Amino acid sequence: MGVEQAAPPLRIALAGLGTVGVGVIRLLDTNRDLLTARAGRELQVVAVSARDRSKDRGVDLARFAWEDDMTAMAHRDDVDVVVELVGGSDGPALNLARKALQSGKPLVTANKAMIAHHGLALAELAEARDVALKFEAAVAGGIPVVKGLREGTAANAIERIYGILNGTCNYILSKMEETGADFADVLKDAQQLGYAEADPSFDIEGVDAAHKLAILAAIGFGAKLDFDSVRVTGITRVQAADIAQADILGYVIRLIAMADVEEGEGGGATLLQRVRPCLVSKDHPLSRVDGPTNAVVAEGNFSGRLLFQGAGAGDGPTASAVVADLIDIARDEVGAPFSIPVSRLDPLPPTEPGHRLERTYLRFTVADRPGVLAEITAAMRDAGVSIESLIQKGRGDAGAEVLVAMVTHEGPERAVRDALALLEGSDSLTSAPLALPLLPD
Amino acid sequence: MGVEQAAPPLRIALAGLGTVGVGVIRLLDTNRDLLTARAGRELQVVAVSARDRSKDRGVDLARFAWEDDMTAMAHRDDVDVVVELVGGSDGPALNLARKALQSGKPLVTANKAMIAHHGLALAELAEARDVALKFEAAVAGGIPVVKGLREGTAANAIERIYGILNGTCNYILSKMEETGADFADVLKDAQQLGYAEADPSFDIEGVDAAHKLAILAAIGFGAKLDFDSVRVTGITRVQAADIAQADILGYVIRLIAMADVEEGEGGGATLLQRVRPCLVSKDHPLSRVDGPTNAVVAEGNFSGRLLFQGAGAGDGPTASAVVADLIDIARDEVGAPFSIPVSRLDPLPPTEPGHRLERTYLRFTVADRPGVLAEITAAMRDAGVSIESLIQKGRGDAGAEVLVAMVTHEGPERAVRDALALLEGSDSLTSAPLALPLLPD
Repeated sequence: MGVEQAAPPLRIALAGLGTVGVGVIRLLDTNRDLLTARAGRELQVVAVSARDRSKDRGVDLARFAWEDDMTAMAHRDDVDVVVELVGGSDGPALNLARKALQSGKPLVTANKAMIAHHGLALAELAEARDVALKFEAAVAGGIPVVKGLREGTAANAIERIYGILNGTCNYILSKMEETGADFADVLKDAQQLGYAEADPSFDIEGVDAAHKLAILAAIGFGAKLDFDSVRVTGITRVQAADIAQADILGYVIRLIAMADVEEGEGGGATLLQRVRPCLVSKDHPLSRVDGPTNAVVAEGNFSGRLLFQGAGAGDGPTASAVVADLIDIARDEVGAPFSIPVSRLDPLPPTEPGHRLERTYLRFTVADRPGVLAEITAAMRDAGVSIESLIQKGRGDAGAEVLVAMVTHEGPERAVRDALALLEGSDSLTSAPLALPLLPD
Repeated sequence: MGVEQAAPPLRIALAGLGTVGVGVIRLLDTNRDLLTARAGRELQVVAVSARDRSKDRGVDLARFAWEDDMTAMAHRDDVDVVVELVGGSDGPALNLARKALQSGKPLVTANKAMIAHHGLALAELAEARDVALKFEAAVAGGIPVVKGLREGTAANAIERIYGILNGTCNYILSKMEETGADFADVLKDAQQLGYAEADPSFDIEGVDAAHKLAILAAIGFGAKLDFDSVRVTGITRVQAADIAQADILGYVIRLIAMADVEEGEGGGATLLQRVRPCLVSKDHPLSRVDGPTNAVVAEGNFSGRLLFQGAGAGDGPTASAVVADLIDIARDEVGAPFSIPVSRLDPLPPTEPGHRLERTYLRFTVADRPGVLAEITAAMRDAGVSIESLIQKGRGDAGAEVLVAMVTHEGPERAVRDALALLEGSDSLTSAPLALPLLPD
């Protein structure tokens, strides 16, 4: 590929030099010639900023201007675009993002928390100045799913978006499946291997997946981004015994983020967004998504079901997404961050899903004494829950505790909730029951 | 979503009113409001053309101007973009495409044969006038894989692209797998069900997949599109017995299109493009791609392995891709059709793959008499092919014919070719042997 370029370089300021920031520099160095050919101009870092200037990051930073105050990068005359890789939903990242857009500079970010919380306000800033706000790297690492929904499936009314959006949870669940180990042990291993953070709560409580889901739902459904309405259940209560029972039934357990739109009672559309561990049939493509891999399914009214799968995190894949956004900007392919201008996004109220029909896996740990099974099944009957299959199993030596697992026939979600309410406080239950939906085909 | 639009509509001329053309009209009608919101302006068909004006196609055509001569649409003042859905690599489709681009009108097409043969020349016309040439629908139906490679993975040096690109072949192979039936019977069923054409040769001989592969390779590798160098083997010689043997070994058989780049002997890069039935491990995601589904894997040097999967054909998915291109044009997101301007695409010479290492499945049908197995294994030895496993099996009642199937250890492709050459003409073989590669992980 040639070297001469008529167009001036795209001059980049890079805030945040963690693994992803360094990954971006490495990518720009490694793939320089082909990036110039594809972008039609050179992608050139001119300034960087991070907390610690002296730290050795394994790349040559001396060739870039250094800013101690990252916000200053938003005002540099020699900068065409700002890349924010600092992280955190508020604070310095948000401040930099606002300043960059207000100065009329395009912004590229990998910051899902910031976009989930402030994406609409930032998009309004960007749209007012007709500059790009791009965040491919915020969702599903190297998988171009923001672009996929924003442009690839743009011709479709999207009926449902769902997928595996958190690599840490998926690593833990597939490791539990593989080894039979319990949650706490696998989490500890994952932390040692770097697949889970020292404070893993955002991941294992489902918050990270919820950030990403809210972003995808806004783009896919043309809905006003509404992170606060995402219903979130993490994976901390999934036990090795649940995975073993699911396996017997032909399922694996995965943390599934899902959003869809339905006609509400008043006639207007409502948006349901939730993140829950689900039983996924071994016949479903998502059941084979193992380890830190991510996958997203989008169902369009003309495209049918589309699956995007790949590495959901890591410096290489995330850098790949950041630089794809930079290429779009170099090519002058801007456009509304959420596909539709913010002012025209639909403020869809959240769906109350009690009427939704689904099948549910229920697990109880109960005292080993007569009458307990009758008590549980009576509660099911009284709440109108129809049981399809049931397994009762002693828990080894202890003898005092028994596991009862069942799968319901399809029925309204609220019936299962009612049944569990009837059993609340019962001294037959030795711990709180677990209810997991079965992912529909 | 609102109705008022400042921007003028994008006025479309549509040539070809087969199932896809009618699908495009249906899609534009069904999703009108959201398309206007996403495209920022109305997508409005103003003129149509097809062979038979009187045919009832189930959509109201009276609202559009009719052109008997489709080429006239390229010159209409009230047309902003021409959509070519006529088909055929040359003739009227090519004529229309040329005329549209020469008149400075963007062109959207689903015509893989035309792009595979004339894509570079058409792209040069488009680039000279800075208008769009878009062909998302030409590859893998509704899966946005042209965009995925052109933009989504644009930051990466692509190391390999491979996938299942022909729905007809995949339907036939997965049906053979499911039913145990032989090729000819399943083909007949597929024709009756509309999954295969009356003349299925382009599909079953692998030519259709080769068209698509050549297009993806040009975009992914920044290579001058070179359809003529694609090495193509179709599925017509795959027997039920091969699928049964593969199954025992833990594999399914799929028609795999694959392209990669390697350093040639002179130091310059060379491009290998081929379409072959392969044994795909049941652990590989492509082994679960059944029926008319398509899937594409792209391996980038930073993104890692990405998988795109969905409906590879059909009027809905194909219309979804056509209209996605129209939205890009309405949004004024043009750019080089093959990601890099034609003049800078690399004219990569084809790779001679004899040195490539692979494992091979070999099937012989032989006369049932002493010494035949010794003859085959001696040829393997003399050519330096190392056998990993071998099964010999009588073919039921007939008695006179025996099946010998083997899998080789990894070795150079040319060794297997040499072994088969040694056996050529042997009267021990009752039919030509079949050699299928094992798809690497």
